[in-house]
Amino acid sequence: MTLNEHDIIAAPATATGGAIAVIRISGEGAVECCDSIFRGRTPLAEAKPYTVHYGEIVDGERVIDDVLVTLFRAPHSYTGEDGVEISTHGSAYIVNEVLSLLVRHGARMAQPGEFSVRAFLAGKMDLSQAEAVADMIASSSRASHSLASTQMRGGYSASLAELRSRLLNVASLLELELDFSEEDVEFANREELAAMLDEASGEIKRLCDSFSLGNAIKEGVATVIVGEPNVGKSTLLNRLVGEERAMTSDIAGTTRDTIEAVCNIDGVVFRFVDTAGLRQTDDRLEQMGIDRTHQALERAQIVVQMSDAGNESEAEPLMLQEGQTLIRVVNKIDKYADLGSVSTADESGIIYLSAKSGEGVDTLRQRLRSVIDTEGIYAGETVVSNSRHYEALCRALKALSLARQALADGVSGDLLSEELHEVLRHIGEITGEVTSQEILNNIFSTFCIGK
Amino acid sequence: MTLNEHDIIAAPATATGGAIAVIRISGEGAVECCDSIFRGRTPLAEAKPYTVHYGEIVDGERVIDDVLVTLFRAPHSYTGEDGVEISTHGSAYIVNEVLSLLVRHGARMAQPGEFSVRAFLAGKMDLSQAEAVADMIASSSRASHSLASTQMRGGYSASLAELRSRLLNVASLLELELDFSEEDVEFANREELAAMLDEASGEIKRLCDSFSLGNAIKEGVATVIVGEPNVGKSTLLNRLVGEERAMTSDIAGTTRDTIEAVCNIDGVVFRFVDTAGLRQTDDRLEQMGIDRTHQALERAQIVVQMSDAGNESEAEPLMLQEGQTLIRVVNKIDKYADLGSVSTADESGIIYLSAKSGEGVDTLRQRLRSVIDTEGIYAGETVVSNSRHYEALCRALKALSLARQALADGVSGDLLSEELHEVLRHIGEITGEVTSQEILNNIFSTFCIGK
Repeated sequence: MTLNEHDIIAAPATATGGAIAVIRISGEGAVECCDSIFRGRTPLAEAKPYTVHYGEIVDGERVIDDVLVTLFRAPHSYTGEDGVEISTHGSAYIVNEVLSLLVRHGARMAQPGEFSVRAFLAGKMDLSQAEAVADMIASSSRASHSLASTQMRGGYSASLAELRSRLLNVASLLELELDFSEEDVEFANREELAAMLDEASGEIKRLCDSFSLGNAIKEGVATVIVGEPNVGKSTLLNRLVGEERAMTSDIAGTTRDTIEAVCNIDGVVFRFVDTAGLRQTDDRLEQMGIDRTHQALERAQIVVQMSDAGNESEAEPLMLQEGQTLIRVVNKIDKYADLGSVSTADESGIIYLSAKSGEGVDTLRQRLRSVIDTEGIYAGETVVSNSRHYEALCRALKALSLARQALADGVSGDLLSEELHEVLRHIGEITGEVTSQEILNNIFSTFCIGK
Repeated sequence: MTLNEHDIIAAPATATGGAIAVIRISGEGAVECCDSIFRGRTPLAEAKPYTVHYGEIVDGERVIDDVLVTLFRAPHSYTGEDGVEISTHGSAYIVNEVLSLLVRHGARMAQPGEFSVRAFLAGKMDLSQAEAVADMIASSSRASHSLASTQMRGGYSASLAELRSRLLNVASLLELELDFSEEDVEFANREELAAMLDEASGEIKRLCDSFSLGNAIKEGVATVIVGEPNVGKSTLLNRLVGEERAMTSDIAGTTRDTIEAVCNIDGVVFRFVDTAGLRQTDDRLEQMGIDRTHQALERAQIVVQMSDAGNESEAEPLMLQEGQTLIRVVNKIDKYADLGSVSTADESGIIYLSAKSGEGVDTLRQRLRSVIDTEGIYAGETVVSNSRHYEALCRALKALSLARQALADGVSGDLLSEELHEVLRHIGEITGEVTSQEILNNIFSTFCIGK
């Protein structure tokens, strides 16, 4: 984002496919730029800010669309700059025509996240809040919304700031010793210091540990359904998501490629992955599918291992990774009358169900949901869901353990203080007190266009 | 749409997936309804219309989102009623939360097209204009935009009104005869009458004939690619649309189901359909795919029949339907050096190309584009693109020919007048002078939500 910050930028702010589309324009001269393609009752430049105007977008005499235009003036706008929002009929063609007209009249297409970059640079929000804006947009469940909302509204920044100020306090005390170094005083009691560092360490560790939950909630809990061919994996996927997402037939090997579908269970999004059945095969396309099954298995948080009630003994043990949860499911209980009396979840934790009739599937849903604990998140607890933050916190934790070791080794206050500033720098990266062009580029390039 | 017209209606007006989402609320009390979930500087009810307000959408103490709210007042709004637009972060979850809050505070979810129904009932637009709004939204090319724009801005209504008023004039003259029936006068010269009816007939016929072009432009020109397995159909599809839409391999029969992808060629959208290769097979899944190929063939406007340059003689003749255009293509010219000298289109009209290297594909694009004539459309000519209009016009044409026959048979003026009113009724259905609850329901139920 070394792009000129004084350009007029424009971008679609809505997805294609709705009744209306909104195009956002920001920067000094944005209003005049719009005036050159807008035919309304009065020029926008003469209108009051925060008002809406009906008119036409024109290319010479050719009318592109009837629109509503909203006017914003610096500094009271999202970016802190002058801005305009054009509301058109929701056609991708119209949006493109309007954007290319704007470009011909002095605007340029905004980079992803560029509106938010400007908001950050104008001091409207810190970096973690700007990132939460993107998370708000992506949020698709009560849990992910709750996470993003806490972060966007500054709850997350506040708890990091609190941690930061405590560490800064310690560093200051150590620096004070430096000023009096000839007198050999210790303003910071070393034992108290050790306790404070341990406490900070514990706190950062808790944040790091929260990432696996936060990330699962943000991205959807990756849940892979595996098993031999024709045990009913696709039927279970369709049943769980409530639509005919995957093609099913009684032919073993109907599912060739992995198929994903999402579904919200009580406020948490699960990303189900239906896979090609596992078996020995000489078919090249089938083997490609099975390879993809193994890849999906590696990335899963929950593994649903499925077998056929008529063929139960054959379910092969799976190699699971750390942190993965296994749920064993026996399907087709509707086909075997003698199984009619088994409860849908026996003591071994195996869930007996019929993907076809739906019997027992609710038990599976509840079991899946119980893997994810959302109580703290709903209460506004600080949970890390952003991998950039997670990595910064891991680095901070490592630096802190070095500082703790240095303290134990009895190094001097100035060296110790330097170590602490290293920790502070990593934490500061999260909220943007410490930042660089590169960090900004990385963050905002993942934003959507128009935000 | 026998729903209460006095309800407050609410719906998302934008597609999910953008940076922002807009929720539209309309009806008496809409502003107060929003006030009950909006926390801003001042209540909306006290604000001036056509102004924008920053604030929060709240559910009690829980904040759902930071939003911008725009205020509209009757009669100067899309629906002619009081209305509010809420601009939220573009998350489907947030949109659903806000909508369910609105419903809890007195609104109900709008039916598809219900905002436009209200605009029509308020006299803001006629029926064909309201339908053009939906077409504007769906327009994805210069040609389809041009069609919808002419219709939305009333050009289409005007030419129908002109036709209608001429027929109405004739009917009035005939009715005047009725008043003087005892004197046995003929105000309407029977020869002139015949000429006028023939002229109207010609005009309606031209409109009917324009439908195949209008419909192709509106829906995308259905272009099916057929041929034996492994001639490179999927590779051509990918080349035409510029992305790896269909999975390709050197294994015959890689494409199992029909695959669609669209692509804009010089202002016209083509809907390409890649199909399973045609051959005799005992494989049940493959046969299902081939059956779907035949279905796609029946619906196509352009058929691209593809063969392999090394195997050209075997291309089987296809049974084409009336109005279908055949384009024969020989692929893989890159593989056969001795074909290096053939031009990419020989006298027989066969196009030689390489889907893999791209050579000759532009010649195919031009040939495809030349099938569709857009000159008249860009000039604002009246072209029928709506199947409801087409059907009404066909009925009008039929009624007109009955009237013309009656005239030749020398029937009396009053009977003739009745026949003409039948014609007028069919034409009036298009713009909504003649309408019924059922017609309205049919039209607006195909609209998107929020329009």
